[in-house]
Amino acid sequence: MLVVMNASATREQIDAVAARIRQFGYEPHVIPGATRTAIGITGNRGPEGRDVLVMLPGVEDVVRVTAGYKLVSRETHTEASVFSIAGTRVGDGFTLIAGPCAVESESMTIESARFLRGLGVNLMRAGAFKPRTSPYAFQGLGDEGLRILAKVKQETGIGIVTEVLDVENAAAVEEVADVLQVGTRNMQNYALLRRLSRASKPVLLKRGMAATVEEWLLAAEYLMAGGNRQVILCERGVRTFADHTRNTLDLSIIPVVKHLSHLPVIIDPSHGTGRAEYVPAMSRAALAAGADGLIVEVHPRPREALSDGQQSLDFATFERMYATLKPLARVLDVELL
Amino acid sequence: MLVVMNASATREQIDAVAARIRQFGYEPHVIPGATRTAIGITGNRGPEGRDVLVMLPGVEDVVRVTAGYKLVSRETHTEASVFSIAGTRVGDGFTLIAGPCAVESESMTIESARFLRGLGVNLMRAGAFKPRTSPYAFQGLGDEGLRILAKVKQETGIGIVTEVLDVENAAAVEEVADVLQVGTRNMQNYALLRRLSRASKPVLLKRGMAATVEEWLLAAEYLMAGGNRQVILCERGVRTFADHTRNTLDLSIIPVVKHLSHLPVIIDPSHGTGRAEYVPAMSRAALAAGADGLIVEVHPRPREALSDGQQSLDFATFERMYATLKPLARVLDVELL
Amino acid sequence: MLVVMNASATREQIDAVAARIRQFGYEPHVIPGATRTAIGITGNRGPEGRDVLVMLPGVEDVVRVTAGYKLVSRETHTEASVFSIAGTRVGDGFTLIAGPCAVESESMTIESARFLRGLGVNLMRAGAFKPRTSPYAFQGLGDEGLRILAKVKQETGIGIVTEVLDVENAAAVEEVADVLQVGTRNMQNYALLRRLSRASKPVLLKRGMAATVEEWLLAAEYLMAGGNRQVILCERGVRTFADHTRNTLDLSIIPVVKHLSHLPVIIDPSHGTGRAEYVPAMSRAALAAGADGLIVEVHPRPREALSDGQQSLDFATFERMYATLKPLARVLDVELL
Amino acid sequence: MLVVMNASATREQIDAVAARIRQFGYEPHVIPGATRTAIGITGNRGPEGRDVLVMLPGVEDVVRVTAGYKLVSRETHTEASVFSIAGTRVGDGFTLIAGPCAVESESMTIESARFLRGLGVNLMRAGAFKPRTSPYAFQGLGDEGLRILAKVKQETGIGIVTEVLDVENAAAVEEVADVLQVGTRNMQNYALLRRLSRASKPVLLKRGMAATVEEWLLAAEYLMAGGNRQVILCERGVRTFADHTRNTLDLSIIPVVKHLSHLPVIIDPSHGTGRAEYVPAMSRAALAAGADGLIVEVHPRPREALSDGQQSLDFATFERMYATLKPLARVLDVELL
Repeated sequence: MLVVMNASATREQIDAVAARIRQFGYEPHVIPGATRTAIGITGNRGPEGRDVLVMLPGVEDVVRVTAGYKLVSRETHTEASVFSIAGTRVGDGFTLIAGPCAVESESMTIESARFLRGLGVNLMRAGAFKPRTSPYAFQGLGDEGLRILAKVKQETGIGIVTEVLDVENAAAVEEVADVLQVGTRNMQNYALLRRLSRASKPVLLKRGMAATVEEWLLAAEYLMAGGNRQVILCERGVRTFADHTRNTLDLSIIPVVKHLSHLPVIIDPSHGTGRAEYVPAMSRAALAAGADGLIVEVHPRPREALSDGQQSLDFATFERMYATLKPLARVLDVELL
Repeated sequence: MLVVMNASATREQIDAVAARIRQFGYEPHVIPGATRTAIGITGNRGPEGRDVLVMLPGVEDVVRVTAGYKLVSRETHTEASVFSIAGTRVGDGFTLIAGPCAVESESMTIESARFLRGLGVNLMRAGAFKPRTSPYAFQGLGDEGLRILAKVKQETGIGIVTEVLDVENAAAVEEVADVLQVGTRNMQNYALLRRLSRASKPVLLKRGMAATVEEWLLAAEYLMAGGNRQVILCERGVRTFADHTRNTLDLSIIPVVKHLSHLPVIIDPSHGTGRAEYVPAMSRAALAAGADGLIVEVHPRPREALSDGQQSLDFATFERMYATLKPLARVLDVELL
Repeated sequence: MLVVMNASATREQIDAVAARIRQFGYEPHVIPGATRTAIGITGNRGPEGRDVLVMLPGVEDVVRVTAGYKLVSRETHTEASVFSIAGTRVGDGFTLIAGPCAVESESMTIESARFLRGLGVNLMRAGAFKPRTSPYAFQGLGDEGLRILAKVKQETGIGIVTEVLDVENAAAVEEVADVLQVGTRNMQNYALLRRLSRASKPVLLKRGMAATVEEWLLAAEYLMAGGNRQVILCERGVRTFADHTRNTLDLSIIPVVKHLSHLPVIIDPSHGTGRAEYVPAMSRAALAAGADGLIVEVHPRPREALSDGQQSLDFATFERMYATLKPLARVLDVELL
Repeated sequence: MLVVMNASATREQIDAVAARIRQFGYEPHVIPGATRTAIGITGNRGPEGRDVLVMLPGVEDVVRVTAGYKLVSRETHTEASVFSIAGTRVGDGFTLIAGPCAVESESMTIESARFLRGLGVNLMRAGAFKPRTSPYAFQGLGDEGLRILAKVKQETGIGIVTEVLDVENAAAVEEVADVLQVGTRNMQNYALLRRLSRASKPVLLKRGMAATVEEWLLAAEYLMAGGNRQVILCERGVRTFADHTRNTLDLSIIPVVKHLSHLPVIIDPSHGTGRAEYVPAMSRAALAAGADGLIVEVHPRPREALSDGQQSLDFATFERMYATLKPLARVLDVELL
């Protein structure tokens, strides 16, 4: 940390700040400047004490230098993490996850799974529990949805990615799912993160609607600190003033996450744009930008979907998009998984 | 809803959209325009069908006309809601809630309560369970914190406003608290909202960091739809590009909420600005703008606070601020509660 | 400035950075830390060199410590600036500026001026040149508008606040206006700022739609550095995700500007909210928060206004609002000007 | 347009709104609904009258249905626009524009041009006039910069893309430049847009820092309405809460612009990210997403650059990036220009 003093700070104030720093067990380094004095701090292991120092007389600001995450950091774990899931991998190639927004019925779910397996897609997304902005909207089939997912998994061998909404249903979802999805609204639901940090399955952690990269990585740190080392980050668009897409898909997060962390990062172009017609372009962009994969909404008949139909691809469009990803991946020397 | 067709939409496409609207059991009203046709819809009771219609050939957009909330709406409940809590009221005057960020010890909590009671403040905030961005930060005293709050309540008679972080601890918090606080990160934690919709105590619902007013009111609708009619809305700043305050305090939400809903709305200038020095100005502004109250962080010794010290007022400053609110309230013909 | 090195930076890299700092003529102060080394810099007078240092091998980031503005800073000019304008003052009380969005005709302009003067308002806003998002919208009466303003000023004695859109018309506007308004879209139009830095009249500088406080103060610094010491800052709402108001009015900027600068800051609740019904609440809030004044849109017949009618108060509403500001100002011990 | 009435609007209010619509010369279409009445409007050619209608008693909102731009719209000009510039094309392939932020000297400019020409890049960016946030920062070489650009153009044959900051210097820039760049801060500088609408050279119009797609296209409409049909749109990142990049690069705007307009859209990954290390990933993403080209900062020695060094690629990195774009373009069936 670095304490920045006011231009008018007195010698006494500077000394008092230095003394307080020593009380914390840290070392102060006074740096007199042309217009103001700064005090470097060493010996601390985090931002503890910042809140106190910033209030001392003569202090203008206290600047943090080190982020608070450790286990997710690339600095302590230089190699990229790779996870084996349901016969495929995440973190070592470009992994496709696709499927309907929600499990609507057994027949449409199995239809989707067969279609995806036929193309070579090994992970299917589909929600049994749906977080909905309105209490009056379709909330998912719940336990019946889980039962359907278990059956579809058994019959087709496809891996299941599905959302856990709360601690209460975590065990039931964990039994069926190959990847436990945490939605954007729950990125900082710490009770849920703590529960999933003890889960046996990997967690796909969506970025919060307005989360900074540091907050997102700290949420991942909750999972890792609790013991779950298999965390997949997922960018799904953030909230900005822009109104031409449902959210603003922040693809620059891909190289940033690669720089800061060893965890894989995948892209959700369906929520990121909110319109099926923009999904193929953003999917190709995600691949070209170095993402570790996609999670895409696909529905056998989007116009009949109970939720998110507008952003779901139909089978034919998904197949066409998939065909354009293949040569792109080849040229980028990335394996399509 | 209103369907807006493309400029190049054909007669057949328009007819097909109208037919689909009738299948939903609604009535289409074709409105031919100079550059494009629009189709008004009547007979629907919500946005159901929007997702389908927007995907039909020739459709440019489907515009929603009515918001999805009902019980929170001013249209169905024209009078302002007033709640009696711990011997005071919310919704009928300007109600002060103040206290430390967290319960740090019995002595500092009782010290705070006595100070507040001495001033005439009847509701104290103080967190036993703290949601923290980093897993390594102080997370609150937990059950021990609740025990302290119960004791302080008994000894001083002050009402307790404290946060519920998860369903698991809801019952324990409910026993002690007079108002159950839902934090900004949990505004769309639907499992928690459903649980609190069955609680016997009022809920103070903070606005999500990037929530629109509609999303916020729909979260309140979750609470009301489940049976809890006592919901207090709380603006605590939203996330924007602006970096001069911790969050951007959106005071214009006050008249907007008053227009849309009958629920009381209070302001949190401590989180809204993140700096104690800006709290008095924003508190006065909240009162002048017509808010129903404040929730303010006050700490006996902010420089020793375990969390949020930078945004906490010390007793002397709070007292000075309180003294400036009194004549302001009088002039505005509002009772200070 | 403070250079933050990577955790893995080598001794050689640290030495190279220190050497480069010395080449700039500055002094490096190496601060070895537990997880990484930082290097304090003294002797510099601004952020020059930052761009270079941040690219050196082993450097993670370079943190700026001092803002780039000087003449606008409270640190170099501790007393609040007060300007005498058209027989009234700005910066020493709560100054009202009101009037129609645009000069639409001589009769409605003089009608407005007389109404305002009757109430004791000494400064009228009214645009002769209007910046409009669409090239097909009403663009103001131009030179004819200036002629009307000159006449109204002569007949009623009211001071004129009007927008300068470009260098070309600056001289003509300067002749008529008492305050030269720079709109939000032009906050970083440096050709215009340079021209107005040589003007004989005060400048009212609106905050850019997405400007940080530092960018805003640096725009003011352009004006002051060129010789114009009379700069009035004006907050008019910023662009965020929030959609319940036209812009998000950022009232917390008031105490922040007061902390950072000696310049007066006024509030535009009309553009800040975009709806006349929210203007009175936000006007009172601005006064209570310590602003130096308001600039409000008032129109004799808002429903017939050629622009911004939705956010303009009619005379009766303005008068009622004015009546509520008076006792508020008295209680706050501020003179209403 | 569609007028949405309050739930409690009376029959008289509805009739009055309909009557007012007829006064505008439009046709009202009353659509009674279950909870409220809406009134469709036909016969209007834009949003004129909206401001008035929204204020009538009983009116809740007036929804616009058609955007205000015409000449830039894909609806009136279905084929993509292609411009021939300096021996290359924009709008029909993937066009590279590269070069230093600023003309710093003749030698570094000619060095850059030769390097680019050697690679097959036909358009060079380089600013003679630089808009800078601080009045104390390097502002460009001005006329001397233009002289250098003219010489470099003559010697190397490279096309010049350079910024016009104001009307005053427009003629001088126009003489030298092949493309006139309008910066993000000037997107709504209407005096400048009007001047350039009469220029003989194409305009590259950067998106404003917080501009919606409609505002951006309306700024382009200013250029086209004045007679300049050669407008190239350029996304350079927008301002959001996210702090991991200098701006948030909004690549989803690419398919959106392609849907709404016939104008070409190129991407500036240098300003979009602010860090050279993220530029290659974002450049590949832009190509994969369907952009019409790039404008990239390249500098012979970024560490010595007078501005934007941190986001400039050195020659070797640019060459490597260029090498990765080639096979990508081939696979996407796009010509690299």
